[in-house]
Amino acid sequence: MPPNRAAQPARPDTKAMSVEALFLGPQSENREFFRSMLDFLIDEHLHWRRDFHPRDAPIVSPDEMRRAGFLATQDRMRSVLLDLSARLKDTSTPWFSTRYLGHMNSDTLMVSSLAQMATTLYNPNNVTYESSMATSPMEIECGQDFARLVGFDPKSSWGHVTADGTIANYEALWLARNLKSFPLAVHEVAPALVKGKTPWALLNLAPADTLDLLDATKKADQFPKALRASARGAGLTRSNLGKLLVPSTRHYSWEKAADLLGLGVDQVVSVPVTDRFRMDMDRLRETIDAFARTETPVLAVVGVVGTTEEGAVDQIDQLVRLRSEFARAGVSFYLHVDAAFGGYGAALFRDADSRFLEYNALQTQLAGLGLERGGPGVPSREVWAAYRALADVDSVTIDPHKMGYVPYSAGGIALRDRRILGLVSYSAAYVFDSANPLDMNLGSVILEGSKAGAMAASVWAAHRLVPLDLRGYGQIVARSIGGAYHFVRTLESMREFTAGGRTIICEPLLARPDYNVVCMAFNFKGNSSLSEMNRLNEAIYHASSYESGPLYNDEWITSHTVLEKGLYGDAPKRFLERLGIGAKEWEKVEAVNVLRSVVMHPWIANNSTYPERWESYLSIMQKDIDRIVAAGAFPEK
Amino acid sequence: MPPNRAAQPARPDTKAMSVEALFLGPQSENREFFRSMLDFLIDEHLHWRRDFHPRDAPIVSPDEMRRAGFLATQDRMRSVLLDLSARLKDTSTPWFSTRYLGHMNSDTLMVSSLAQMATTLYNPNNVTYESSMATSPMEIECGQDFARLVGFDPKSSWGHVTADGTIANYEALWLARNLKSFPLAVHEVAPALVKGKTPWALLNLAPADTLDLLDATKKADQFPKALRASARGAGLTRSNLGKLLVPSTRHYSWEKAADLLGLGVDQVVSVPVTDRFRMDMDRLRETIDAFARTETPVLAVVGVVGTTEEGAVDQIDQLVRLRSEFARAGVSFYLHVDAAFGGYGAALFRDADSRFLEYNALQTQLAGLGLERGGPGVPSREVWAAYRALADVDSVTIDPHKMGYVPYSAGGIALRDRRILGLVSYSAAYVFDSANPLDMNLGSVILEGSKAGAMAASVWAAHRLVPLDLRGYGQIVARSIGGAYHFVRTLESMREFTAGGRTIICEPLLARPDYNVVCMAFNFKGNSSLSEMNRLNEAIYHASSYESGPLYNDEWITSHTVLEKGLYGDAPKRFLERLGIGAKEWEKVEAVNVLRSVVMHPWIANNSTYPERWESYLSIMQKDIDRIVAAGAFPEK
Repeated sequence: MPPNRAAQPARPDTKAMSVEALFLGPQSENREFFRSMLDFLIDEHLHWRRDFHPRDAPIVSPDEMRRAGFLATQDRMRSVLLDLSARLKDTSTPWFSTRYLGHMNSDTLMVSSLAQMATTLYNPNNVTYESSMATSPMEIECGQDFARLVGFDPKSSWGHVTADGTIANYEALWLARNLKSFPLAVHEVAPALVKGKTPWALLNLAPADTLDLLDATKKADQFPKALRASARGAGLTRSNLGKLLVPSTRHYSWEKAADLLGLGVDQVVSVPVTDRFRMDMDRLRETIDAFARTETPVLAVVGVVGTTEEGAVDQIDQLVRLRSEFARAGVSFYLHVDAAFGGYGAALFRDADSRFLEYNALQTQLAGLGLERGGPGVPSREVWAAYRALADVDSVTIDPHKMGYVPYSAGGIALRDRRILGLVSYSAAYVFDSANPLDMNLGSVILEGSKAGAMAASVWAAHRLVPLDLRGYGQIVARSIGGAYHFVRTLESMREFTAGGRTIICEPLLARPDYNVVCMAFNFKGNSSLSEMNRLNEAIYHASSYESGPLYNDEWITSHTVLEKGLYGDAPKRFLERLGIGAKEWEKVEAVNVLRSVVMHPWIANNSTYPERWESYLSIMQKDIDRIVAAGAFPEK
Repeated sequence: MPPNRAAQPARPDTKAMSVEALFLGPQSENREFFRSMLDFLIDEHLHWRRDFHPRDAPIVSPDEMRRAGFLATQDRMRSVLLDLSARLKDTSTPWFSTRYLGHMNSDTLMVSSLAQMATTLYNPNNVTYESSMATSPMEIECGQDFARLVGFDPKSSWGHVTADGTIANYEALWLARNLKSFPLAVHEVAPALVKGKTPWALLNLAPADTLDLLDATKKADQFPKALRASARGAGLTRSNLGKLLVPSTRHYSWEKAADLLGLGVDQVVSVPVTDRFRMDMDRLRETIDAFARTETPVLAVVGVVGTTEEGAVDQIDQLVRLRSEFARAGVSFYLHVDAAFGGYGAALFRDADSRFLEYNALQTQLAGLGLERGGPGVPSREVWAAYRALADVDSVTIDPHKMGYVPYSAGGIALRDRRILGLVSYSAAYVFDSANPLDMNLGSVILEGSKAGAMAASVWAAHRLVPLDLRGYGQIVARSIGGAYHFVRTLESMREFTAGGRTIICEPLLARPDYNVVCMAFNFKGNSSLSEMNRLNEAIYHASSYESGPLYNDEWITSHTVLEKGLYGDAPKRFLERLGIGAKEWEKVEAVNVLRSVVMHPWIANNSTYPERWESYLSIMQKDIDRIVAAGAFPEK
């Protein structure tokens, strides 16, 4: 079966991409285009059905369609859909509006919504190629896009679209776990291939060396036996494969992963973070050192690019360096980056040929996109270096339904060396020959089974329209980060204001966030009680979230989070100081409630809606605090 | 936050449901209704945006919309969508047509496609209630529907919509695994609660007793400690939790599950099947007995209701009885049923009050739906008894994207006793109070993280329109099974025919399948070579599948499967005899290729398209075999 030969649309010309044309818009600005494309796609499908053996008998005649039962069934269908629409309108969050600055949500790309809607009618299933000849290749193509985006060699890497980022993280840990167990398995079934290696050395074979060993077992006709003796066949009762090191800012899916995969949550070790909310490299080094001294293996280290709560970017370059250092000392581990949130940010650093830009060239390019040269909107050198180092890790999670601006739910994973799939593959013949349609039988190498081809089509359409570099996603991400910096400046400009007859102070968690998340807190000037400040910010959240009642009536919608001492250590201390809260209070209360805004909209950095949005922000906060204070919850002492 | 109070549409009146009104139809017969509903839903969404703070500034002015970059971006979007549509039309399988009788696919319910398309625009995420106030309750409601469908007590059971059936199976095994490990964990941290029990007894505590023990640890304030000492916290290195027993006909996701969950594929034990392709209960009993003698625990037994290849229904009632017997002998295991395919079949046995019908009453009801009383279209007593016993198992997988006729991808799971969720929950406060919106934070008790609310809406809309009993899904399933029996009869009527100048014989695998799958093989009369017969059926498959080239040109599309001696034992022997293939050939070749048709369409049992379809079937087969023989691949000996 030859691959689909339909013409590939030309990549868009850099200068011409209009971000405004990509989204339906907060006022349904692009409604006419949206409608005309949807009509076209629906027409295409209706005729596709009608044109397949058009002389076949219809299932129902016009006369039957006028009968009572038929009409009654239509009436009920209408009523179910009316009810659905009413429920959606009544309680859905207006992500599309710039008044929403909460979770990782905003408007989604029209091309993706349309692709998803149209493809649903054809109903492909990417579990096997036979059931999805159009969309399985799209999923593989998106995987190649992910790999290119993070800098993996397209010839040896692999990737695909997962049901979500949690599943991508599971998949990475599944691969890492089976890989870690493989050298011990070889030792059991073909000891000659690992002659002279101690069990400790076998548990510390570098991932690349383990994959070479995999090839060696294939040559020696020992692969199936070795696979059977590995965790895949033998399970985890034989040996402890070691610890999973994650920054304390990681997503809770990592605990779920350790549970699900049979490692146990106790194997998860939280590495403290710095006051930039990045994994503390010194503490990481100490942790690994301590484990090495007791010959406790480290199964994997996970770096996070874009933490859920703060958008912090771990220093992946230092992580890569640290791994090399430890490898020289005979200690090795798998290195995964959870860039579910930050992944598409890599587009900011790549030129039209997908080359990673040098820092100076980057600044020039970003200046063209409205981010002032040397200004706070330009990613710092540290962030730039972290992204550059993605090319050197073993796998990366990237979620299209976050900064890929596609609808739920689409995660993604990129693997540096596709040979690793042999450790989880349920197809003996899997050889990864992209000309071979059997290699599109995804169900046999991934965690999921049946999966909607519509989701792959949605991501594919986004990637074909919006290049994964500065011309496309880079431009959107730059606007998003630009919006976050504007927000920080707005907060700084309103550092003291009056509301509810009191002087209110306000502080961003970070003056220069790594990405597009702005956390902040308000306090009554002079209040030194952390509990009191927490109550104030909770009350503001309550007034600006679904807790206040119908969101549709809200003027402003945000999210919140709690930074707990148990996870964050003393990272929030300096932030609290700026708000007038001393160290003793922190030791006592051990948690600080902050408001959290992910600034995903591309509209509030350099567009006509920008001044309007930020000007209204202060007055909305004032009104909210007026009401909160008037309710009597915060009597002046 | 009160639950959504929008009026629930009245349940449809039994007699009135028109199956013909539910689907778009093979000739887009219901195109006008589909279009008008889609237009309505899109209008609703566009205005919902526009009405949210309508005086906010638009992101783009009419003038800007006429600029070159804007228009060029629209042009490119059009071109990407045109390309997508072309690819979909070029290679998608026309599931909707009655000419397609292959995998578990057919047309899908209009109400579900529409619900999915509309909800995608609101983009809810069911991971937390906050992000999906309309669709998280729908997911929970669908879970209650699943539970009611299989007969679980709605007060104590739980369920939800999973990303697919494979994920549902993982979720069941995850629960079973953590449950099995729990009594040993209690022994470790609170031995008084399990005083006098040996390790073997602890590994054989019945699931219900283990959940009572869970409650006891809560009362004794030992639950968090015990949980931490269970597989969830401690992983699987401490003890072998035992074997996973599955029929040899099970889906390959069970091996993946054992790998993923750290048990190891070696723990999977294949139980042989009878010549009805149902799990052999005597062999199962022997297997468990043998394990018990060596004190090898059995973690779980999986029954299958609707095997992928044959649609066979394991005798769940006997499985339940067997479990009780073993329990009396101190041997216990978790009992899961994989009814991914067969689950919605349970609607066939339930009346409008969701009561499971007695066998006689069932026959009367089915006669009203066109299935002849006592005739082969009526499920056998064995199948009826198997479905009735679903109420007594621990959990069931049910896929809406199979016999629920909704688009990909939606699986489902029902748990008999919701207390089991405590063993995988990542929310300390999880108390399952349905009035508490926090209990809608699905991400903390299920395997997945972010998940499309659109999928839950799609299943919910189907369930609200089509009742899960004889009035709704029962009617559709009855038609589907009726179609399968007609197909079997058609094959029997063409037992000998002429094609390619040869006499061809033809045999269904089973004269009375348990569900709606028809497997069959053709042979040259007098040919006693199994390899030759396999080649013939492969050639027919090749001519009637995507392997032949564009499916759009095919007159008939089917799927195929290979029954291998390694998995199936001697189950296919009698079938082969009827085709003139002796036992020696089977011993030698060890595999038989059969054509496989899942008859999902509700159109070919009792509708005007029925005679046309089956009459053309014979002539299409004749033409195919004519061509195959003419190509010279089968010279007459």
